[in-house]
Amino acid sequence: MDVSGIFPALTTPYREDGFVALDHFKANLARYNKTRLAGYVVLGSTGESVLLSAAEADSLLVAGKEAAAPGKLLIAGTGAESTAETIARTKRAAALGYDVALVKTPYYYKPAYKAETYLRHYRAVADSSPIPILLYSVPIFTGITLEIPEIVALAQHPNIIGIKDSSGAIQRVVEVAAQAHKEFRILTGSAGVLHPALVSSAKGAILALASALPEKCVELFELFQSGQHAAAQTRQQHLALASKAIVSEGGIAGLKYAMDLRGYQGGLPRLPLLPVADAKKAHIAQVVSQFEPATARA
Amino acid sequence: MDVSGIFPALTTPYREDGFVALDHFKANLARYNKTRLAGYVVLGSTGESVLLSAAEADSLLVAGKEAAAPGKLLIAGTGAESTAETIARTKRAAALGYDVALVKTPYYYKPAYKAETYLRHYRAVADSSPIPILLYSVPIFTGITLEIPEIVALAQHPNIIGIKDSSGAIQRVVEVAAQAHKEFRILTGSAGVLHPALVSSAKGAILALASALPEKCVELFELFQSGQHAAAQTRQQHLALASKAIVSEGGIAGLKYAMDLRGYQGGLPRLPLLPVADAKKAHIAQVVSQFEPATARA
Amino acid sequence: MDVSGIFPALTTPYREDGFVALDHFKANLARYNKTRLAGYVVLGSTGESVLLSAAEADSLLVAGKEAAAPGKLLIAGTGAESTAETIARTKRAAALGYDVALVKTPYYYKPAYKAETYLRHYRAVADSSPIPILLYSVPIFTGITLEIPEIVALAQHPNIIGIKDSSGAIQRVVEVAAQAHKEFRILTGSAGVLHPALVSSAKGAILALASALPEKCVELFELFQSGQHAAAQTRQQHLALASKAIVSEGGIAGLKYAMDLRGYQGGLPRLPLLPVADAKKAHIAQVVSQFEPATARA
Amino acid sequence: MDVSGIFPALTTPYREDGFVALDHFKANLARYNKTRLAGYVVLGSTGESVLLSAAEADSLLVAGKEAAAPGKLLIAGTGAESTAETIARTKRAAALGYDVALVKTPYYYKPAYKAETYLRHYRAVADSSPIPILLYSVPIFTGITLEIPEIVALAQHPNIIGIKDSSGAIQRVVEVAAQAHKEFRILTGSAGVLHPALVSSAKGAILALASALPEKCVELFELFQSGQHAAAQTRQQHLALASKAIVSEGGIAGLKYAMDLRGYQGGLPRLPLLPVADAKKAHIAQVVSQFEPATARA
Repeated sequence: MDVSGIFPALTTPYREDGFVALDHFKANLARYNKTRLAGYVVLGSTGESVLLSAAEADSLLVAGKEAAAPGKLLIAGTGAESTAETIARTKRAAALGYDVALVKTPYYYKPAYKAETYLRHYRAVADSSPIPILLYSVPIFTGITLEIPEIVALAQHPNIIGIKDSSGAIQRVVEVAAQAHKEFRILTGSAGVLHPALVSSAKGAILALASALPEKCVELFELFQSGQHAAAQTRQQHLALASKAIVSEGGIAGLKYAMDLRGYQGGLPRLPLLPVADAKKAHIAQVVSQFEPATARA
Repeated sequence: MDVSGIFPALTTPYREDGFVALDHFKANLARYNKTRLAGYVVLGSTGESVLLSAAEADSLLVAGKEAAAPGKLLIAGTGAESTAETIARTKRAAALGYDVALVKTPYYYKPAYKAETYLRHYRAVADSSPIPILLYSVPIFTGITLEIPEIVALAQHPNIIGIKDSSGAIQRVVEVAAQAHKEFRILTGSAGVLHPALVSSAKGAILALASALPEKCVELFELFQSGQHAAAQTRQQHLALASKAIVSEGGIAGLKYAMDLRGYQGGLPRLPLLPVADAKKAHIAQVVSQFEPATARA
Repeated sequence: MDVSGIFPALTTPYREDGFVALDHFKANLARYNKTRLAGYVVLGSTGESVLLSAAEADSLLVAGKEAAAPGKLLIAGTGAESTAETIARTKRAAALGYDVALVKTPYYYKPAYKAETYLRHYRAVADSSPIPILLYSVPIFTGITLEIPEIVALAQHPNIIGIKDSSGAIQRVVEVAAQAHKEFRILTGSAGVLHPALVSSAKGAILALASALPEKCVELFELFQSGQHAAAQTRQQHLALASKAIVSEGGIAGLKYAMDLRGYQGGLPRLPLLPVADAKKAHIAQVVSQFEPATARA
Repeated sequence: MDVSGIFPALTTPYREDGFVALDHFKANLARYNKTRLAGYVVLGSTGESVLLSAAEADSLLVAGKEAAAPGKLLIAGTGAESTAETIARTKRAAALGYDVALVKTPYYYKPAYKAETYLRHYRAVADSSPIPILLYSVPIFTGITLEIPEIVALAQHPNIIGIKDSSGAIQRVVEVAAQAHKEFRILTGSAGVLHPALVSSAKGAILALASALPEKCVELFELFQSGQHAAAQTRQQHLALASKAIVSEGGIAGLKYAMDLRGYQGGLPRLPLLPVADAKKAHIAQVVSQFEPATARA
């Protein structure tokens, strides 16, 4: 299975009455299908998965499967706090035709969670899952960093094929690559360090930014693949500033606003997430305008 | 409404097949009913609420209402990540006869959550809730501290009657008491600082430890009420060490083990929470043995 | 030795040309001598000790000894990063007639400093010191918290008589008091939790705030001593807000400004510490005005 | 001035009686002179600068100047907590013939230090310094991260020529390079991310590891320069694991032990730094043995 290249962490559009807008979700996928994105992540952190009901989450998985073009790898976010619920969600994603499950660390009972907790949790999930597992460490949201010894140990499980590391810590990429087997896939979750991550043997990335600027992220990946490091360095700097303004400072609301500006179905996030403030809107608009003229709003 | 005194954060017992054991849950309440506990918190962090399905959570609310003796105040944990889901859970708890809703801070999208986020979230919940709201700040699990200016601002809402602060920071108790109106109820979530919190104008506490040592926690509260500060100081030291061994170091698994030792229905936590290691068991047993002889196992 | 009561952490006044103003330093002491302060701390964090040359530090120790009234206990801050230098400074303070040395934790090489490091450091200093040692844990500046097992172990050394804990964590006071011998003296460094600390068996406090509001801090201590807990609670709230505005938000510059307002020799701090911004000045002035009319400037 | 390539952060050897061993220090330099190291950093964090007396520090600066081969760039660590003392040390280093001053952030009064503090501090130092200034951000020791807006603002000062960033955060390298002028030199302080830092436009590195493995670090730099990214990736992984074992886990004591194994004058660190534990020694020896046979001890 070729888990490499650029995957957008898909956003969840809502209708004006607050319900999930599956038609808008599919409309975005229809446009992404025309790019060289490697596939899609449904129900990631960027998809507001923790703000969705179980039924809404399921409907998005179904819609994602329906709308994705053949050849696009489908990754479902299935991590829940409980091991049993994570297994249930993972099996459901597999049944719906997803290729890979992205499983974030449990994180609520931090003081009680030790290395052993994560080893047992992930092994239980991987043992039960019909599809391969990607570990997912996203300390900015969870407060939990999956540490290198655990990653290296879990890499030995035949059904754990890689990790999405959203810490931005390139040293972790280097050290995991040095210690895990060669087929273990490291994906970065930080657009601001995509090029250095690739240079350090990451295979690709799952990026919020790729929901707004998919072709720009793909182009950086391809510059790396063709060994054009100087051009890649420049493009990386450009994307890092864009990612900072749109994703780091704007959050999901900022990302959706940037999507609106580029003709995708962005819209507002769900409460308690607030809309982007006007000052941030202006900054995001200025950043987005530096890229090619926005596609006409669908 | 008299939200003062000691409230145990109730644990959730499981059957051997992993399902919630409502009969064991009720058996615990039957014993707690005979103490001077002021009431109960159902679906708190200690209740493994984030590991339960919606149906399980609902069944515990129903069972709690059925089993609680008249006069015991009933508090339901209803905080979810989304504002709408929090409101729905709060209304359900009210419909089931709960007196107060305990609403923890949303916490997943930390970088995007600002003071304004919490003000709007809590006001929306309080506006919609048929029952009074207790704010709930529990940084050890959520990574989020509800800060003093927000607490003081929210204290002005007529349907927000207090806060459970599990940070253990007594300075926050002092400063909130200095700035909020006199009826705003501060409850500590830390057994290790119960006496200093009360001295600083807290009205009581919601304590995991009170599920294992209810009468000991109540006695400390009553020593304070009767002005016996020297005896309270000694008892506080005793409870602080017990709380550290049982709750801080043992976690929910340790608390349940201590409950087992004292004749309650403790049992094992749900995965990914692991059972207590044997070394910790010995330490917890030693700590528990310093209190009166354990009641015979029911 | 009676290390109890309220000790101000003395500030260091400078002349307009930037040199240390020993006359102003002594003038402050002359006024403090008339209060019921238990003694003085020279060269604490509040004294800008890390911004002073060795000669300046020595001159302040000499001046402090000269200016302090008989019966005022003299505590010298002598902690340096190196063990040898700490010992040298401690011996010098003893030779100058200081009663106690206050020794902050080494902190620069944090990743290398383990419990063993602190045990060996403090034991070496205590073994060599002609005067008793107070441990000093001040994580807000050092990033290092002296943990309870180390404190309890070090309390067994005959020449280590107590600790100044500036963390504000009352649970640590409770737990240390529960485990160390009865004569081990815990002093808090946080004016915002003075009363709860005393209730939890602290013997007193070393406070920056006491350089600006000495009699107010002493009065709170005496309210506690005489068992007037309700009055103490109110006074505590008042001092907590004052401490927050003057010390926590104002820093040393804010404290010196408050001293100026109350007729002491405050002045400006040394660079890189900046003067208080005007907005903060107004807030500090408003806070100070709530206490009795400021003494006429000497 | 060509501030690029690899610079070891030199260690400070001690005699058995605890005094600084200038002859050993010079002996190390004599061997380093034969490598393609770009120059030397004297009195960095690795040099135990915070554990040295003023006289010792001065003697090391003198010895470094005497022992360094022509063409080796000389960088002196001159950062002190006070602005005035930093300026004095910087002038002294310039007078002794040092080419560049490396100025770490003040860090003790963290709560009081704002962006403005650092802007004013560094501008005052740069204005007064006869030699160019390198900013130095080393959060692992200081708890302070020099943030990107401040770095970019300070880069405009004609006498501030670059930064040593020891955070290991490659995104900061990318963002600073994107926003500062082209001549602003970014040096990483983390051997574990040397290659990704260079790929992201860092000009070189100041490395503790280069005191034990100078030629290995230089070779990685040269692999990058000649565009051999695959070989660089492999070497980077090797060095990352070595750096982790020797520097991150071993600290200065571990680094000195590795130096001993490779025939340099390492020795023991000064207290409170403790010698390496035996278990760590074995691990370090195993790591060092993976590189070429150690040079015979001089």
